[in-house]
Amino acid sequence: MTTLPALAGTAVQVYDTTLRDGAQQEGMNLTVADKLAIAPLLAELGVAIIEGGWPGAIPKDTEFFKRAEKELDLGDVELAAFGSTRKAGSRAHDDAQVRALLDSGAPVVTLVAKSDIRHVERALRTDGPENLAMIADTVRYLVGEGRRVIVDAEHFFDGYVFDADYALAAVAAAFEAGAETVTLCDTNGGMLPDGVHEIVAAVRARSGGRLGMHAHNDSGCAVANTLAAVAAGATHVQGTVNGYGERTGNADLVAVVANLELKLGATALTPGGLDDAMRISHAISEITNISPYARQPYVGASAFAHKAGLHASAIRVDPDLYQHADPTRVGNDMRMLVSDMAGRASIELKGRELGFDLAGQDDVLGRVTHRVKDAEAQGYTFDAADASFALLLREEVDGARPQFFTMESWRVSVHYLPRHSPDTDAEATVKLHAGGERIVATGEGNGPVNALDHALRRALLPAYPEIADFELIDFKVRLIDTSHGTDAVTRVLIETTDGQDVWSTVGIGPNILEASYEALSDSLVFGLLARGVEPR
Amino acid sequence: MTTLPALAGTAVQVYDTTLRDGAQQEGMNLTVADKLAIAPLLAELGVAIIEGGWPGAIPKDTEFFKRAEKELDLGDVELAAFGSTRKAGSRAHDDAQVRALLDSGAPVVTLVAKSDIRHVERALRTDGPENLAMIADTVRYLVGEGRRVIVDAEHFFDGYVFDADYALAAVAAAFEAGAETVTLCDTNGGMLPDGVHEIVAAVRARSGGRLGMHAHNDSGCAVANTLAAVAAGATHVQGTVNGYGERTGNADLVAVVANLELKLGATALTPGGLDDAMRISHAISEITNISPYARQPYVGASAFAHKAGLHASAIRVDPDLYQHADPTRVGNDMRMLVSDMAGRASIELKGRELGFDLAGQDDVLGRVTHRVKDAEAQGYTFDAADASFALLLREEVDGARPQFFTMESWRVSVHYLPRHSPDTDAEATVKLHAGGERIVATGEGNGPVNALDHALRRALLPAYPEIADFELIDFKVRLIDTSHGTDAVTRVLIETTDGQDVWSTVGIGPNILEASYEALSDSLVFGLLARGVEPR
Repeated sequence: MTTLPALAGTAVQVYDTTLRDGAQQEGMNLTVADKLAIAPLLAELGVAIIEGGWPGAIPKDTEFFKRAEKELDLGDVELAAFGSTRKAGSRAHDDAQVRALLDSGAPVVTLVAKSDIRHVERALRTDGPENLAMIADTVRYLVGEGRRVIVDAEHFFDGYVFDADYALAAVAAAFEAGAETVTLCDTNGGMLPDGVHEIVAAVRARSGGRLGMHAHNDSGCAVANTLAAVAAGATHVQGTVNGYGERTGNADLVAVVANLELKLGATALTPGGLDDAMRISHAISEITNISPYARQPYVGASAFAHKAGLHASAIRVDPDLYQHADPTRVGNDMRMLVSDMAGRASIELKGRELGFDLAGQDDVLGRVTHRVKDAEAQGYTFDAADASFALLLREEVDGARPQFFTMESWRVSVHYLPRHSPDTDAEATVKLHAGGERIVATGEGNGPVNALDHALRRALLPAYPEIADFELIDFKVRLIDTSHGTDAVTRVLIETTDGQDVWSTVGIGPNILEASYEALSDSLVFGLLARGVEPR
Repeated sequence: MTTLPALAGTAVQVYDTTLRDGAQQEGMNLTVADKLAIAPLLAELGVAIIEGGWPGAIPKDTEFFKRAEKELDLGDVELAAFGSTRKAGSRAHDDAQVRALLDSGAPVVTLVAKSDIRHVERALRTDGPENLAMIADTVRYLVGEGRRVIVDAEHFFDGYVFDADYALAAVAAAFEAGAETVTLCDTNGGMLPDGVHEIVAAVRARSGGRLGMHAHNDSGCAVANTLAAVAAGATHVQGTVNGYGERTGNADLVAVVANLELKLGATALTPGGLDDAMRISHAISEITNISPYARQPYVGASAFAHKAGLHASAIRVDPDLYQHADPTRVGNDMRMLVSDMAGRASIELKGRELGFDLAGQDDVLGRVTHRVKDAEAQGYTFDAADASFALLLREEVDGARPQFFTMESWRVSVHYLPRHSPDTDAEATVKLHAGGERIVATGEGNGPVNALDHALRRALLPAYPEIADFELIDFKVRLIDTSHGTDAVTRVLIETTDGQDVWSTVGIGPNILEASYEALSDSLVFGLLARGVEPR
């Protein structure tokens, strides 16, 4: 084995297209304000160029460039305007769409150009020579106007396989007219790494300019295809944060860059940029309102989470034997999951993560391990309910659980009248003791759990006004033993936030209401404890 | 470019580890019933071997093998029991864990074995030669007992980079003792395709037996790494459906196989298996209760979805210019055209499956397609609810839905008293019209849904004694839009049996009770119709 990384010394230019190609994702709808909020995060990540959109074609993209010029300070990062080569049979400087690219004020213009002769003839409905002229004219005109020009050769790989000479002629036309980079696009996303390597190397052998790679993940190989292109000589990579994009998405830029920098020895982002990748990836998820994907390489919440109890003691001694990269290099962290196979070592590690030092406390560790196994046999699961596990730990460490309130009873009722509107009337009444008083409170809701949640909060608010900030953000229900239908044990997982932190609790019971009640009350107790509130 | 696919003529053995390594995923907790439901779906997909779990170490896996032997007919598909080599300093036939592997009755045993000398010394706390003896002894013993043995060489790639001779010695020990396959595992998941290719080729040059690949997705390259191993001579691939697994997951088996079969010309699954990949992937998601990932290659809901844009007419005329593979090869569909031919064709097919001949009935097909799309936009899913789909079809074919009863109203109430036993009192009252009478009936249960189910049955029994045979056997709840906590839309899936057939229905609503009521009443209606009962 060679020990020198394969790309040591290679500098790769990183081009982000989250705001343009990423925004094509099904269900994503970015406002101008969203784009203005995302761009500085991309600059923080340290990409070289941010593609902002297609001014002229998409009105909100026109507005984005206008406002970006006034409102954003992106430092050394350049904005790129995306657009198309001139129309067939016209002149570049008469083309309104090309004019809009200039008017955007972006220093970089990225032109999408056809390089697959079939698309030239069937989609563009023109001929091969005219398409080459469209590329050459538009590039030459924009370069003459002082813009740096990148050409995205659309459907390049499929085109090359069908007619390599024509695809190469399109690349040559772009470079001859002054394009600084030609990006080879796997527009349909179906290439595999060996094919990408072979074709990029062949183009490299025929071209002097900078080659780029634009990959989609349709075959599940977008990251690998991008790396294969770099190995074959491309020094410009395009991708999106969180792999957003049409169909299966674009190449996930963070995974591409982390592999390039941490494994292959290349330089890509501004130094230090990668260190914040997890925070930036999650901040962008908040803006796009698309839940982060826990299994995302490098920056997913589960990416460095370990479950195996068997090896916990070895993990503690030698973490590098159990992780492919240092999670702190991308701003992530190793996490231990408490599960089925929980052993004392993994519980000790998990405790440390939650702020409990259990080293040497063999009696506590023994009791906790026993309780976890017991609880899991009943249907609890702690690997997705850190807050419930922290409450259990605290109870064993302190000897008792803090009593924020005592429940006397609750009652929930739902009345369904099919011809009324709304057709359901759900209400809950709780009777409990808190803050030295007996409280009876009623809540309504769109269903039984919602009504119970409202009644419980209303009852506790006088004694604990802090819970006004808590908001339920996710709620999952599952039946554990499915062999008995509605007689089975119900498990509820709840996620709560106070606007800053998010915590998860679990409840089980013979029915959804008892299970929900346990998870709801644990979520309130954990939230209060985390804020340092004492029982009143 | 070569036109012959790179792996034409290569036969690859597909080994599924969804039930063992996939089940390690954070938040996943499969019951024995879940595993028994997933295994036949894997057999339908056409994998060669299904790894069922670790009998002896995990009690529910021991039970899985016991019940699988009696309850499952998997045809030619073999079950594999996963376990470890014998303990250091002992003998294989004295090892309780090895004994449990034999007792499982599985014809194939997969042994995890250390091949990285650092793990041998620091995690196993033994020495190199003893670990080789542990491999050889355990393999030899199990082969002598008539089992086919696969050895999973854990941390193989990291081990090879650190000490190639030792890693190769572990492989040699396994083959010499009679292992039919040695799987090279990228346990930490950080390899990149070029490194995998280089190492697998080097092992291949030194070994005569079958080599396998087990990849994790930590660098975002699990699929590409698996393909690289096959290109270098491996002919056994391991993976999980939907890429389930610890951290970032295992190699997504469907993407691996689709690339192997559709792009590289290899044979992998039983012929025809891949055609149902999307349905099987989604059915397994329903069982694991983990939402399908829309951007999943090949089988994701968005994988072949095209935003209708500039080239819509070109896409319609020449779809192959805009998609990397034919979506029907994996049971998926190009979504932009779903309103025209593709949607109708699949509904016609599905109708035929359910006993409705819709060929040529363009008006009915059009109406059904429209209603299905409408319902799915509201949150219904028909993938896992054939009976609900059949009711919808029948309604459109007959022009109206049979009215077995008319609901006037129902009311459910749950009272929780923490110091009583049982602590919950749940009751429901339904008022409905059936058999020419107005009926008021009350039911009790261990929770609100159970009480409602009991009340509904009690009310309908006089008019429809047939429902006495119906039994609810599964009940699943999911919130569809998780951005509003308990305010989101609830979806309930119910499975009912009459002792012979099993049918599934779906209900949605603003709360669990309304959703359950819809699924429960559809399940009764479908059951009655299936028995030829007319409304009374």
